[in-house]
Amino acid sequence: MNIFQYPSQPEWAALQQRAAQQQAQDVEQRVQQIFEDVRLRGDAALLDYARQFDGADLAGGLRVGPEELAAAAAQVPAELQTAIRQAHANILRFHKAQVPVEERVETMPGVTCWRRAVPVQRVGLYIPGGSAPLFSTLLMLGVPARLAGCPEIVLCTPPQKDGLVNPIILFTAQLLGITIIVKAGGAQAVAALSGGTDSVPAVDKIFGPGNRYVTAAKQLATRYGVAIDMPAGPSEVLVIADESATPAFVAADLLSQAEHGPDSQVILLSDSLSMLEQTKAEVERQLRELPRAEVAAQALTESRAILLRTPEEMLYFSNQYAPEHLILAVKNPEQLAEGVTNAGSVFLGHLTPEAVGDYASGTNHTLPTNGYARNYSGVSLDSFLKKITFQRLTPEGLLSVGPVVETMAEAEGLRAHARAVTLRLEALAGGKE
Amino acid sequence: MNIFQYPSQPEWAALQQRAAQQQAQDVEQRVQQIFEDVRLRGDAALLDYARQFDGADLAGGLRVGPEELAAAAAQVPAELQTAIRQAHANILRFHKAQVPVEERVETMPGVTCWRRAVPVQRVGLYIPGGSAPLFSTLLMLGVPARLAGCPEIVLCTPPQKDGLVNPIILFTAQLLGITIIVKAGGAQAVAALSGGTDSVPAVDKIFGPGNRYVTAAKQLATRYGVAIDMPAGPSEVLVIADESATPAFVAADLLSQAEHGPDSQVILLSDSLSMLEQTKAEVERQLRELPRAEVAAQALTESRAILLRTPEEMLYFSNQYAPEHLILAVKNPEQLAEGVTNAGSVFLGHLTPEAVGDYASGTNHTLPTNGYARNYSGVSLDSFLKKITFQRLTPEGLLSVGPVVETMAEAEGLRAHARAVTLRLEALAGGKE
Repeated sequence: MNIFQYPSQPEWAALQQRAAQQQAQDVEQRVQQIFEDVRLRGDAALLDYARQFDGADLAGGLRVGPEELAAAAAQVPAELQTAIRQAHANILRFHKAQVPVEERVETMPGVTCWRRAVPVQRVGLYIPGGSAPLFSTLLMLGVPARLAGCPEIVLCTPPQKDGLVNPIILFTAQLLGITIIVKAGGAQAVAALSGGTDSVPAVDKIFGPGNRYVTAAKQLATRYGVAIDMPAGPSEVLVIADESATPAFVAADLLSQAEHGPDSQVILLSDSLSMLEQTKAEVERQLRELPRAEVAAQALTESRAILLRTPEEMLYFSNQYAPEHLILAVKNPEQLAEGVTNAGSVFLGHLTPEAVGDYASGTNHTLPTNGYARNYSGVSLDSFLKKITFQRLTPEGLLSVGPVVETMAEAEGLRAHARAVTLRLEALAGGKE
Repeated sequence: MNIFQYPSQPEWAALQQRAAQQQAQDVEQRVQQIFEDVRLRGDAALLDYARQFDGADLAGGLRVGPEELAAAAAQVPAELQTAIRQAHANILRFHKAQVPVEERVETMPGVTCWRRAVPVQRVGLYIPGGSAPLFSTLLMLGVPARLAGCPEIVLCTPPQKDGLVNPIILFTAQLLGITIIVKAGGAQAVAALSGGTDSVPAVDKIFGPGNRYVTAAKQLATRYGVAIDMPAGPSEVLVIADESATPAFVAADLLSQAEHGPDSQVILLSDSLSMLEQTKAEVERQLRELPRAEVAAQALTESRAILLRTPEEMLYFSNQYAPEHLILAVKNPEQLAEGVTNAGSVFLGHLTPEAVGDYASGTNHTLPTNGYARNYSGVSLDSFLKKITFQRLTPEGLLSVGPVVETMAEAEGLRAHARAVTLRLEALAGGKE
């Protein structure tokens, strides 16, 4: 962890730089091939990839059957089941507060307009396998998908070597009421979701994290008219810590970010040099106790501890950087939080580690990375809804707004638009309709 | 206009097909060159392009000055001013109903989570010049941008040959309180907005319609971390008309879509053959009276009038097609509207032509085309806001949610996440913090 003392503003840009996302061309090409293969051969291609990449023989089929699903819960420790149920309840409670209210607005007498939230009809949730089953991400995507009322929810996740899906994933899916579960991972899963195969329904929108193949595949899917949750990049945290912070807590938060992957981004800002130095020492001490110490250590080589002068300056730096996670380990976090303009999710005070938001406080952990907090929101109920506008005019409404439309349409040179109103106004005047 | 009678379901796909969007490779290459040029030469490049594409000498500068702005209103007829003011008031009223309420949710005792809507800080609005000044689109983008409170709003629009900006555009900008107005059009305007030049601030999100160069430029801008409103395609309408509809009205609505451009998409569904035939005749009659008859006639060669059996079947067809605009010219439109799952904006009944929504009813006219109504919403206040989540735990909160987080983090193999909680719980138990 490198400490930078009072860098000048021109030096900030370099400190705010993220590691370049080299989207290797060979990744893109490989993903394109996989897409073509899945479009051409469908399920047969998915079965081959499962053998090749997951070492799994899926002769029993690509979909999780009712028996496999039913057998899952017994394999999940009771304590973990309880924890997942509690997290589910909290996430549900927070997302329920986002349910939009349909309100009719009479903009002029007889001109009534409204918006209705309609679920995206077919959504795909991608949950990676890899080192650990990310059941927490399944909660984060499944809760709003179900709450939105999406009629078709397709879960794709890679099989284990034994051809089964991790039981914790299945237990969580059952809790969510998700029944279409496909044993497919990687770019091939995204390809299947975007084009459809015999076993995998095509969807309108794809959600979920993944390695660079999955990321490239999601990007490619957008060219087929499929929407995605958001552009992806490595996870990141920025911590603002003042003298009131506890170095051991701050260090633990930085490490919990660093253990995600060697490309995780970690930034610490403080107006106290001793805070930076103590935290650095704590990071080194705690690092040794971690099973994923190697990963975290690699991420920390690129981490930055920066000494700035005032809370305002730290906030300004943070808003420019636009972190995915922002921890305000300061004495008056509510006050500082008022000034946050660019961030994915914000954690206030000394007792709110990022980890609680990653799992169970209720907020969503699928958040914009790579500076996209400037222009994207994290996943929420909205991500699974479209807002369709409706309008209806009474005769009085047409009489009041019609002339406005005629005038504007003529000024834009769109005569037929004006005529669509004029014809109706004439009919009204003539007593017809 | 071709009539198709009772096509079988397998034939629907062809009837729902949109004209292939051939993104000519030469367009992409040209746009890439323009981006590089603007990044390299900044304002100088913009001045050259203004000379080349707009025939305008902008020696006086790329920005609209206060004098040019002040002189605009006098050149706009009073009737048009009044109409624009009324449209502005209606659009504002409708979008004000979308202002989100910040609600704090206590998901567990001591665990408080909330979302705050924060404006996208820097937005660019692109308004094309071309055949007519699209001041209506400026209203549709400017009203929610201002309502959201975006601190920096940059309007780009091509200059006239005399180097001035169309006075109706300027009048509308004044009404909206938009002061940064850049005389730049085409791909070069989008390039400037995404990278910034001396005269054009870089922005976080770009909105607005345009030709295929602008569309390609917006797509390219996303590779530089800039967000865009939505993918673009030709405008389109689908009308469902039953026996209660007036053929002249329906024909006028179809024509008002067709006059947008030769690639506009027009589909008419009915369960009455005579309605289809009468409307077709009316279309041909009204077409002759239009100044843009040639454009509309070209669009109509690809239009489809389709006879189906029931309202349910028509709705099913429409939801599969996912039209940008959907007109329900039927006896009980509210009932039919209940079943709409995929559409941009819906117009109910015989007195609600699409034109009212295009201009002045209050709903937004920037809507998803090309089937994107399946997975995108139209522009709304939301498009100019990000939702940042916040959370804060009390000691009681950490005691209640902490163990849940520890259990889940360990199960996902993320020890440092668990430690960030454990350390704090230990400190609480020890009476520290």
